[in-house]
Amino acid sequence: MLKERARNIIDSLSDEANALMVFRPENIFYLTGFWGESIALCTQDRIKLFVPKLESSRAANESKNSEIIIAERGSGLLKSVIPNLQKFKFYSDCNDYETIQSILPHTDNNNFVINEDPFRDARIIKDDFEIEKIKRASDIIDKLYQVCSEEIKKGITEKQLQAKLLYEAMKREGTSTCYPFTLNPFIVASGANSALPHFETSKREFVEGDFIVVDLTIRYDGYISDATRTFALGNVSNEMSQVYDLVKKSQQQGLECVEQGVECRKVDSACRDLISKYGYGDNFIHSTGHGVGLEVHEQPWIRPNELKKLSKGMVVTVEPGIYIDSKFGVRIEDTILVNENTNTNLILTKFSKELLIL
Amino acid sequence: MLKERARNIIDSLSDEANALMVFRPENIFYLTGFWGESIALCTQDRIKLFVPKLESSRAANESKNSEIIIAERGSGLLKSVIPNLQKFKFYSDCNDYETIQSILPHTDNNNFVINEDPFRDARIIKDDFEIEKIKRASDIIDKLYQVCSEEIKKGITEKQLQAKLLYEAMKREGTSTCYPFTLNPFIVASGANSALPHFETSKREFVEGDFIVVDLTIRYDGYISDATRTFALGNVSNEMSQVYDLVKKSQQQGLECVEQGVECRKVDSACRDLISKYGYGDNFIHSTGHGVGLEVHEQPWIRPNELKKLSKGMVVTVEPGIYIDSKFGVRIEDTILVNENTNTNLILTKFSKELLIL
Repeated sequence: MLKERARNIIDSLSDEANALMVFRPENIFYLTGFWGESIALCTQDRIKLFVPKLESSRAANESKNSEIIIAERGSGLLKSVIPNLQKFKFYSDCNDYETIQSILPHTDNNNFVINEDPFRDARIIKDDFEIEKIKRASDIIDKLYQVCSEEIKKGITEKQLQAKLLYEAMKREGTSTCYPFTLNPFIVASGANSALPHFETSKREFVEGDFIVVDLTIRYDGYISDATRTFALGNVSNEMSQVYDLVKKSQQQGLECVEQGVECRKVDSACRDLISKYGYGDNFIHSTGHGVGLEVHEQPWIRPNELKKLSKGMVVTVEPGIYIDSKFGVRIEDTILVNENTNTNLILTKFSKELLIL
Repeated sequence: MLKERARNIIDSLSDEANALMVFRPENIFYLTGFWGESIALCTQDRIKLFVPKLESSRAANESKNSEIIIAERGSGLLKSVIPNLQKFKFYSDCNDYETIQSILPHTDNNNFVINEDPFRDARIIKDDFEIEKIKRASDIIDKLYQVCSEEIKKGITEKQLQAKLLYEAMKREGTSTCYPFTLNPFIVASGANSALPHFETSKREFVEGDFIVVDLTIRYDGYISDATRTFALGNVSNEMSQVYDLVKKSQQQGLECVEQGVECRKVDSACRDLISKYGYGDNFIHSTGHGVGLEVHEQPWIRPNELKKLSKGMVVTVEPGIYIDSKFGVRIEDTILVNENTNTNLILTKFSKELLIL
């Protein structure tokens, strides 16, 4: 099945290319099952995986349908694939400037096309094998929200809750996702911190009257699920309850808009228009959602002006939020599997979205 | 002090450039204290940090000496910096092909030099502030090996130990380092698995007679320390004890070779020659070490043929290993702060290297 993936991508290129040269770990994993230091050359019927010696046994164990070729580490890996450049017309996901500068003298632009789109287009629709893994990641997230409901108490810090949650995730073979633009495994943001959508979890202790935003991105065997719940500790103000209800309704409207054939911008406006109508448009300072899979953020993008249409087999998030500077924030997010119509969609993250007052 | 860092890099460029355009999160963190989605423009006396709205409050809180400029997310961020391209001569760490393709039409190669070396050269020597953080990360690692000595028992799985260790790290504000070529937070490899230097931690249970290699890379407030210890569970074979002693002596010889002015290849051969002398040269299938700091692997490289000399303030690993295919492996690694001479070096990871039989 993995082998078919490379063939399907090559077929989609018709006469433009007859091979792939793959550099990004997530694309190599998608095509071979191995996530590590390597370069993959794929033709219609063969995958050659170039790996350094210290990765070779692992590559042999983990990859499927691949011939392992041992090469020097680092630039030596590239040197080993260069003799192949004359043999095929390649499409490549390479986006590394230095690497491209090393390759181009050995070929010409027609035979080495740098374009990640065919890889992205292939990965945007998830097959049953992939969906199963995203479901497992989602089940772990549901369990972690159960843990939140038991562990959130006055005096516990954001970091303490975060450590506990990651521990419970890892006991179930979930890991954090290593998004490169943060040092924070995932977001736990309480009180005024919750007004920052990308807050880095701190040593702040939870206090009565807090909203606590817990945004969990968990990876299971490569595949990611992504959800957010906002919990209340003790009684919260009327404004907070009202904002919570508004975000919850907005998110519900977004979910109900999801189905095959709908433009992504429609899902965004389903969420955003309601929030704007109640005067909080300027407080919803991010897009409504994104695809998830081997990356936390991947195609399609659920945002204003996005004309791309949803299709059966896409897995996307719907995550409106309202952020009141220096006071509080609310975000509610699910990961959802797109199907032919709204009734047959599958919301993969299932923990309650009622305001839980702890 | 952060502000001086940008000025020092610009000064090192003399007439070639008078500004920096910085894209990589670790370099932006080095110059501003903020790790997130952003582009930084640095001149002699100013840093402008371009960030998307959802990152802006966090950037304002976490960055030092920086003027925050709010821009659209993604390609919008780049659009906002392009008008500055005519004003300065830039050095940039940008290595993203698509981004470079977008920039080049607005400038010429003389005014936009793509070269990460000045950033790498600056980061290779750690100041007191950075060393303090690497020491904190090292202290966490020492504590985790204490946990290993208590938790390693028959029937415990590699993944269980890994989860427990990361939990204990996070309680102390340590996180995993998110090396992009693996999905595994850090390596716990037991029995025959330990023969794979980059093994992905599994559900294998520890059994009597195992070697258990625990390679910990832990980040504290941005900065990383890296160590490896190999534990024995119950009695191990004579061959295993002998290989352990050989790796331990090899690592000791490497550490004793470290001092200012020594070529990196000398440290590599100090370790490698002893292992080769006893007939295990082909079983030491990786280089001897690397610099650590904001990245797990950074300059300098402790490997054969590497002529670069060690300098005071560098922080490097020394980590020889021997891997006997399908049987067992041993690796011993410390992170060490280089000083004028061997006697004043500081080995930052301090847990015992005697063979611990648990």
